[in-house]
Amino acid sequence: MDFKFSDRVPSLDNDVVGEILKVAGDPKIISFAGGLPAPELFPVEEMKKAADEVFEKDGQNALQYTASIGNPKLRQLVTDRMQNHKHIDCNVDNVCITTGSEQSIDLIAKMMINPGDVVLVEKPTYLCALDVFRSYGAKIVGVDMDDDGMKMDSLEQALKQNPDTKLIYTIPNFQNPTGRTMPADRRQKCAELASKYNVMVMEDDPYGEIRYSGEPVDPIKHFDKDGHVIFMSTFSKILAPGMRLGWIVADKKFVDAFVLMKQSADLHSDNLSQYIVARFMEENDLDAHIQKIRDVYYRRSSMMLKEIDEQFPEGVKHSNPEGGMFIWVEVPGNINTMELFKNCVEHNVAFVPGEPFYPDKVIPGTFRVNFSNMQENQIHEGIHRMAVAISEMLNK
Amino acid sequence: MDFKFSDRVPSLDNDVVGEILKVAGDPKIISFAGGLPAPELFPVEEMKKAADEVFEKDGQNALQYTASIGNPKLRQLVTDRMQNHKHIDCNVDNVCITTGSEQSIDLIAKMMINPGDVVLVEKPTYLCALDVFRSYGAKIVGVDMDDDGMKMDSLEQALKQNPDTKLIYTIPNFQNPTGRTMPADRRQKCAELASKYNVMVMEDDPYGEIRYSGEPVDPIKHFDKDGHVIFMSTFSKILAPGMRLGWIVADKKFVDAFVLMKQSADLHSDNLSQYIVARFMEENDLDAHIQKIRDVYYRRSSMMLKEIDEQFPEGVKHSNPEGGMFIWVEVPGNINTMELFKNCVEHNVAFVPGEPFYPDKVIPGTFRVNFSNMQENQIHEGIHRMAVAISEMLNK
Repeated sequence: MDFKFSDRVPSLDNDVVGEILKVAGDPKIISFAGGLPAPELFPVEEMKKAADEVFEKDGQNALQYTASIGNPKLRQLVTDRMQNHKHIDCNVDNVCITTGSEQSIDLIAKMMINPGDVVLVEKPTYLCALDVFRSYGAKIVGVDMDDDGMKMDSLEQALKQNPDTKLIYTIPNFQNPTGRTMPADRRQKCAELASKYNVMVMEDDPYGEIRYSGEPVDPIKHFDKDGHVIFMSTFSKILAPGMRLGWIVADKKFVDAFVLMKQSADLHSDNLSQYIVARFMEENDLDAHIQKIRDVYYRRSSMMLKEIDEQFPEGVKHSNPEGGMFIWVEVPGNINTMELFKNCVEHNVAFVPGEPFYPDKVIPGTFRVNFSNMQENQIHEGIHRMAVAISEMLNK
Repeated sequence: MDFKFSDRVPSLDNDVVGEILKVAGDPKIISFAGGLPAPELFPVEEMKKAADEVFEKDGQNALQYTASIGNPKLRQLVTDRMQNHKHIDCNVDNVCITTGSEQSIDLIAKMMINPGDVVLVEKPTYLCALDVFRSYGAKIVGVDMDDDGMKMDSLEQALKQNPDTKLIYTIPNFQNPTGRTMPADRRQKCAELASKYNVMVMEDDPYGEIRYSGEPVDPIKHFDKDGHVIFMSTFSKILAPGMRLGWIVADKKFVDAFVLMKQSADLHSDNLSQYIVARFMEENDLDAHIQKIRDVYYRRSSMMLKEIDEQFPEGVKHSNPEGGMFIWVEVPGNINTMELFKNCVEHNVAFVPGEPFYPDKVIPGTFRVNFSNMQENQIHEGIHRMAVAISEMLNK
């Protein structure tokens, strides 16, 4: 039968990313397309021990319903981390646990966007966020970036040109897909502009703790004086994505409304997993665990950058991330990277073409490669295969 | 600051249910207001064993991202149960795991409702579903019920009067809040009307397996010939609500679109919990576990009905549920049950007044009491306190 879906449902024929990931899932292909953390670094033994103790001490409570805002102990642990690691002035009333960052994005969008309202995003940006904004009828406007992330003069211009702007969506650390990081002065300026134009900033920081070179930069939320910034992060990259646990830090009045929306979305996030993660954090040194992730990702990132420099044809440029999981590559000669993708698949290697990351006008010749879930021999061989495919396209 | 929320955000000053539950949370109050399963029946030891085995055999996979549609093994186990217990003609492609029934309701509403579209619901119905429908701009129209649930002549009349109807939302087994059950002939008629008027039925069945008297009735989905019925259920009442795992069964084309919406909502449901529940189901007899729940709830329900009959003043009526967790009470004399609630709180007992369960016109003098999470001495004493409070109101 033909279903009469609402205007929020995207066309099923247009799931470019789904198709890319399906092709890239072929086991003979070396895939730099995904965005998965390295599973061999998951602290399985420690999580098992934490889970055992939760079942022994709090089994009935952990399996029962809980408050939509989240487990009190986990919220306190997150609050402490936000104060100490991120220098955010907050208390436990400012923190709500979410079913991963994707839910944080979804509920904030649902709360803020009426059809036709404008969301300003980095050009390019996280493609699943674009899907969410579109599903609530947002008009999405891209803001120019350079190697230091979103440009503040372009942001202010966009704010002036779009008085219906409700949200600025930004990933200031090791951005997805570019790997770029916004310096402190831009973060401060971003908070000031949000206040001046009375719009909200969604500061999405899934990767911030995975910094393996350079110095940490305080978040935009650190510079927020009057509640215009919502900080979002997740356990997906520092612990385990399968448990779908993230959080937001925001003004208490905002959190109160957010909790009502969350109640309608899934009542609360998995309570058992919230208990397990809280127990894990009490018993283990999360920072020491994160340091192991940083060390491995640094080796993989360095190796991939070296291989790109050595093997890719002349004129190819790339970002130099100081953390996170992705490198952004720019190929000369107006190459259509959807076509390049097809040619790479012929050579049994995959990546994500730049196109779906762009909110509006696509800049040709760009693509994203992931290194976090790649063994070193795969990086060497995969980049070699890509180099051959790129050369073929350039010499056509 | 004043946040410029979208039209989807309800007024924060109007959270009647939140206020009721807050008052009812006072430890000196015997509260029949909640809707919690009995935690002493959670199979904590068996879940611990299942979790241990998941960490030992599949730790890395269970902590990693998974497909939005859900864990393949859990989907197969659910499919088998839907075929054998519910007589639904389906295969694994028709099943998507969700983050509890609340998410199923939310995503189906998001997929189907454009602002102004009509949703037909039982009068009264599950109040959180009303919140969800409102958040997408639905016009909600109540359909009359009798002791056998939604009346089919009223449903057809409503379908004729509301050509913009997109959804029929119904809880055919032990309905929340009334405890009423729809017989087979009405279910078949409901499926036929959905097909005739080309609207979708959301068949919400969280309690169906908790039948402790009478004979099981096949779901509306059993009578669905052309994909107009979406069946929804959950592990919350038969296993543990804290893990937030539910599922939908629907036409494959519908599931494909639903999965895209789910991807934007939370990527996927907790993968660790999906592994644990699948393992639990492989190793334990879920039906034997459910039988334990039925036995306990039957005792509590019978005792509460007996106490109501013996202690409540003359003229008070109540439903006679054959399963589930709730009894619906009707008090004579046009009593305002919000006022009665306040008087009951004075006597240290609580319930949920009927008002928030009604989509439009409120029928006065109704309220819901829960027995699933009540010890027998609490039932005796709590109903006694309520009887005193009701008599005071009637004799005013």
